[in-house]
Amino acid sequence: MAEPVRHAVELEVRYAETDQMGVVHHANYLVWFELARTHLCAHSGFPYADIERMGVILMVSGAELRYRRPARYGERVRVECWITELRSRSLRFAYEVSRDGELLVTGTTDHLWVQRDSGRSRQIPSELRVPFSRLAGESS
Amino acid sequence: MAEPVRHAVELEVRYAETDQMGVVHHANYLVWFELARTHLCAHSGFPYADIERMGVILMVSGAELRYRRPARYGERVRVECWITELRSRSLRFAYEVSRDGELLVTGTTDHLWVQRDSGRSRQIPSELRVPFSRLAGESS
Amino acid sequence: MAEPVRHAVELEVRYAETDQMGVVHHANYLVWFELARTHLCAHSGFPYADIERMGVILMVSGAELRYRRPARYGERVRVECWITELRSRSLRFAYEVSRDGELLVTGTTDHLWVQRDSGRSRQIPSELRVPFSRLAGESS
Amino acid sequence: MAEPVRHAVELEVRYAETDQMGVVHHANYLVWFELARTHLCAHSGFPYADIERMGVILMVSGAELRYRRPARYGERVRVECWITELRSRSLRFAYEVSRDGELLVTGTTDHLWVQRDSGRSRQIPSELRVPFSRLAGESS
Repeated sequence: MAEPVRHAVELEVRYAETDQMGVVHHANYLVWFELARTHLCAHSGFPYADIERMGVILMVSGAELRYRRPARYGERVRVECWITELRSRSLRFAYEVSRDGELLVTGTTDHLWVQRDSGRSRQIPSELRVPFSRLAGESS
Repeated sequence: MAEPVRHAVELEVRYAETDQMGVVHHANYLVWFELARTHLCAHSGFPYADIERMGVILMVSGAELRYRRPARYGERVRVECWITELRSRSLRFAYEVSRDGELLVTGTTDHLWVQRDSGRSRQIPSELRVPFSRLAGESS
Repeated sequence: MAEPVRHAVELEVRYAETDQMGVVHHANYLVWFELARTHLCAHSGFPYADIERMGVILMVSGAELRYRRPARYGERVRVECWITELRSRSLRFAYEVSRDGELLVTGTTDHLWVQRDSGRSRQIPSELRVPFSRLAGESS
Repeated sequence: MAEPVRHAVELEVRYAETDQMGVVHHANYLVWFELARTHLCAHSGFPYADIERMGVILMVSGAELRYRRPARYGERVRVECWITELRSRSLRFAYEVSRDGELLVTGTTDHLWVQRDSGRSRQIPSELRVPFSRLAGESS
């Protein structure tokens, strides 16, 4: 079985992302995870903005974060993202935030495919099945 | 001519609103202004959430802020809001943020009435004319 | 053994907290958790701002969130917080976000006591031992 | 007299930056301005993080924004920044946010040089005079 596709974005810590502790406020890592997820989805050939235009939402149903070391203003960090679980109605992404090869924060987010207008959980849209299976490293 | 209705909200500075300077990051005042504006609109009898449900948006077209003194984590601040200009297609709100009577930040925001689906500028919805004139302190 | 002290804050969903899905962006719940935690600490007689002035930081080392139902702009939500684990060097808080008695989001955050200047993990400051034991519902 | 140095950053609109209007929330442009300002300062040879380590803060004393067209999730925007006014104790930056050459938002921010420990207004540090004069396009 193949490995999942890992995709990384590089970003620069913004001043507004710090708090009075002098480090990045812990809520911002969820925003960075999301940016990396956006890039990974785009990599599948289906930018997330297009998925929403299809009337489908990848709703967040859970998240977990482990903070090991803080990021600071002005630093460049790398956020890596990949799929660790792909089911018909849900999927899980994993993340690693690092700076110069040093691991700062890890996490996962769980998502449900949801029909935008009804708000109901649904199966992955058929046109996304193959591209997401490839992202997940499954033989399709 | 009557004075405009002034409405105030009290809020508590959140840790996430601070930055590494140890004070509230300057972008958050726009968020606080918005909260006070929400309360002022509700005061007119038309909560802003209801206005959007009517298919109309009060789009921000401009903003101006003067920062005199910083607010800090854990403090309670008061944000006062009132209408300073009411035209058929636009309006301006003014704001004062204070702590224990001491003025911290002042500002204004300019808004256009916009039709949600077309994205086009429009006149104030007829049912809002009287309540907003009252807010603005105009004899209707 | 006594129950931990549960403390709740009520807050009003801000427009800026929503995203284009039309609901509160999932990262904001960590900010709300923090606000409830601030209130719980204040309840111990030691406002968190004072704890930081003592040169001690309650650094976030982990977080977990389960999103059941979304909160929306203009709604009032209640965020309840209590301590579920109290050790000499760390503690865990749990949270429930609800709206009119309906559970929206649950979560936990893990924290380490850290000496501000050195950045090193440390034991809970001695003056906080009794008040935090009481919060945790332990007979002290 | 020379023109001021104009510096631009490219950034990608994040999902968390949108609001339920489906566009970027207006407070985020101040965060983007700040990112462009950070890059411009770095261009002077004095990264802003280093300036703060010198014990000096470039405190925001005012801001003005004009919103012409909204940015949306997934788009790439360009934020250009330059100095329009340089005095001994204060300076003003101007900004233009554009997408594919189309102007979206313009603005300015005013800043005071402040001594970090005392919180007092002060003159520009002597080692920054020449580099900032160059940024401002003044013959030094």
